[in-house]
Amino acid sequence: MDKFVPDLIAILGQERVLFEPEHLAVYGFDGTAALSGTASCVAFPITTEEVSKIVKYAAAHKVPVVSRGSGTGLSGGSIPQAGSIVLCLAKMDKVLELDEKNLTVLVEAGVITLTVTELADAAGLLYPPDPGSGKISTIGGNVAENSGGLRGLKYGVTRDYVMGMEVVLASGEVVWLGNKCVKDVAGYSMKDVFIGSEGTLGIITRVLLKLVPKPQAKKTLLATYSRMDAAAETVSAIIAAKIIPCTLEFLDKITIQCVEDFAHIGLPLDAEAILLMETDGHPAVIAEEAARMEEIARKCGAVTVQVAQTANETDKLSSARRSAFSALARISPTTILEDATVPRSELAKMVNFIQGVAQRYNLRVGTFGHMGDGNLHPTFLTDERNKEEMHRVEQAMKEIFDFAIQLGGTITGEHGVGLAKKGFLAASIGNASLELIKQLKRTLDPDCILNPGKIFDL
Amino acid sequence: MDKFVPDLIAILGQERVLFEPEHLAVYGFDGTAALSGTASCVAFPITTEEVSKIVKYAAAHKVPVVSRGSGTGLSGGSIPQAGSIVLCLAKMDKVLELDEKNLTVLVEAGVITLTVTELADAAGLLYPPDPGSGKISTIGGNVAENSGGLRGLKYGVTRDYVMGMEVVLASGEVVWLGNKCVKDVAGYSMKDVFIGSEGTLGIITRVLLKLVPKPQAKKTLLATYSRMDAAAETVSAIIAAKIIPCTLEFLDKITIQCVEDFAHIGLPLDAEAILLMETDGHPAVIAEEAARMEEIARKCGAVTVQVAQTANETDKLSSARRSAFSALARISPTTILEDATVPRSELAKMVNFIQGVAQRYNLRVGTFGHMGDGNLHPTFLTDERNKEEMHRVEQAMKEIFDFAIQLGGTITGEHGVGLAKKGFLAASIGNASLELIKQLKRTLDPDCILNPGKIFDL
Repeated sequence: MDKFVPDLIAILGQERVLFEPEHLAVYGFDGTAALSGTASCVAFPITTEEVSKIVKYAAAHKVPVVSRGSGTGLSGGSIPQAGSIVLCLAKMDKVLELDEKNLTVLVEAGVITLTVTELADAAGLLYPPDPGSGKISTIGGNVAENSGGLRGLKYGVTRDYVMGMEVVLASGEVVWLGNKCVKDVAGYSMKDVFIGSEGTLGIITRVLLKLVPKPQAKKTLLATYSRMDAAAETVSAIIAAKIIPCTLEFLDKITIQCVEDFAHIGLPLDAEAILLMETDGHPAVIAEEAARMEEIARKCGAVTVQVAQTANETDKLSSARRSAFSALARISPTTILEDATVPRSELAKMVNFIQGVAQRYNLRVGTFGHMGDGNLHPTFLTDERNKEEMHRVEQAMKEIFDFAIQLGGTITGEHGVGLAKKGFLAASIGNASLELIKQLKRTLDPDCILNPGKIFDL
Repeated sequence: MDKFVPDLIAILGQERVLFEPEHLAVYGFDGTAALSGTASCVAFPITTEEVSKIVKYAAAHKVPVVSRGSGTGLSGGSIPQAGSIVLCLAKMDKVLELDEKNLTVLVEAGVITLTVTELADAAGLLYPPDPGSGKISTIGGNVAENSGGLRGLKYGVTRDYVMGMEVVLASGEVVWLGNKCVKDVAGYSMKDVFIGSEGTLGIITRVLLKLVPKPQAKKTLLATYSRMDAAAETVSAIIAAKIIPCTLEFLDKITIQCVEDFAHIGLPLDAEAILLMETDGHPAVIAEEAARMEEIARKCGAVTVQVAQTANETDKLSSARRSAFSALARISPTTILEDATVPRSELAKMVNFIQGVAQRYNLRVGTFGHMGDGNLHPTFLTDERNKEEMHRVEQAMKEIFDFAIQLGGTITGEHGVGLAKKGFLAASIGNASLELIKQLKRTLDPDCILNPGKIFDL
């Protein structure tokens, strides 16, 4: 037992501090393959004051603090380093206020994303961010990672829905940033600094989220292709036709086969690609948009285009995309999911490049993702015990990142840098930008106690 | 002539450096009443490299640099302090790329907002930010101030359309932030730090803006009221009915009378308030929304509701709001325009409070503004030579700011803090937040050469 465990127990009580090896093992992982660590203890605060006390304690004793929610992250952002306190916010799970007049909801960081989705829905509202892990991820984690999801094309990402937040700074001081005003330019936008900071600048304890009116209806279409790039061309053509659907999701052949084997949806096993298209809004508008998207898809070479006629059919088509990661993860011992992202105009090139890389390195790669956002998830089906193959995976990943950057893209569209991608950050944003973000880190966390070693090495 | 003028001439050439008193007088103002200053010289760079050279020179000699575009700011953000170099970016006015595939446009900072609006329009696209000064303001200024405008309710503000930017840092180093990806979480979002930083953290030289498909049609309505708060109730009721129009603009009686006297639109001079409502999008949707808004306005007590039937009528109704500031500015020697902002649910309280304050202090105040955003512009019609009255204006303004903060609002929704509101910033965002933004300033501009004395005193 680390010497500071009794001190944490004094703050939180025995039952909210874990330090036994079997517990530490569980909290040594997140959703990222091939990465783990072992903390000294796991603390479960239930109030902001407790978080503040723990951070003050950590600051005084220079102990690293790694915050986390449900641990669904895909870049190792919440993997603890040795000797650290894991601050698990999962028990701070209260919905504090739904304000239907101002279309906002105030929640504690540990509230599950789906809870907010359902709460909004019941009030005739929509919380648009829709990360794949939404059934178990927490809002705090979503904000810390600036999570994306399946509706990004039309609705944007988590950042676009954060109106305010309570943050515990590296000193332990508690700050509230933002308010319920839809316009506010009083001082720099500090909340934007903490959104997407991956637990390295502060601990987010409460979040004020913006909601929007719920769209009246939606239409779901599924197009199949005999050529991968025809799917990418469809995406470009839809945008060029000035249609912004809420969802344009892509599955390649390997993914289709794995999904079908897993979910028995009736997907065509010989298709090279599938595009799941969804438009929401006024019935008249979506009927028109769906018809135009079908026409565009056919013009771009879709073999079949299916329009869901019932809610049941819609669910079935959507589940094809939703189950992609789980379906792929069944195939091999290790599933390495990447999220290189490119401008939409470069999608066809990127898709072809990923296929080429997989062939050259003799690797199994299933690709799916948010094609409407230029955000692809090439997923390596591998085995971390096979060092030689893992080496090839690394080489292939590096080529994919390099190519994304060459196309004006980024190494991560929605998963964050964390541990997994910090080696590629300088190439992605440039040394001058990297120096800027390091300066920010040194300013806000001078002793580097908050999630050290993530995003960059200081 | 200041000793550094010849050095600047060596960088830019004689014709792009002004230092004669008559020129300095012109560049000593922006759009803010009762504030002015005199710089040592005004420099007109035409390339980023020149901006960088000037900032490097200023950094080496510890000379303050005050950047500006067209000088339409309403918080004194570009008022030069004595001894400073005014860096006027108006000549950096090239549109560099319109990318119709990715729906982006890359411009230099000095490009006029209207140029972008028109360029987008010609391509069947929309650049949504629509500041009142858009015909003359520059994109660089819009980004530095995070300008709002008349379409904020549905479309958000300038921040929501900035995908990337080139910034010259306080060291003179040039950094590019962002890209054409609609999702990017590689490192902290530094561009969000510079958006709205009012020239105090860096000089924005190029901006990559996001465009959206142009709505097919719009409907414009004008409702008149015999009670001010009935207009505020209409706004709340429209939002509660889950309608998000693009525009919900408000004019009070004094403003109506001034506008009518100026523009001869045919506004009812006995109305206590007017609400200009605009919805854009698919013809079927806006027809439905316009009908519902008319019904809601009538239920809330509107005396008349007029729906524009022709483009000409639409222009006429819109001009009622667009000419509000100009019309008020004709009445008195000094026009002090504020932009306290509150959560939408608190609008009726705020409107009544402003009227009460005006009466108590015996002041003429015309109020108009973006009611859908909770963003009001109480406008004091006064005379800066009348010290006694100016003192009452200050007292009244302070009460309005205090009340806005009490209601969970902010001291500035879209005009910035600048010089005009720095005394109120601590009360608005709290001391802890203020300390955070000061830390950021010290980190990014350690010698405080960029627009010193604005937003806060260090």
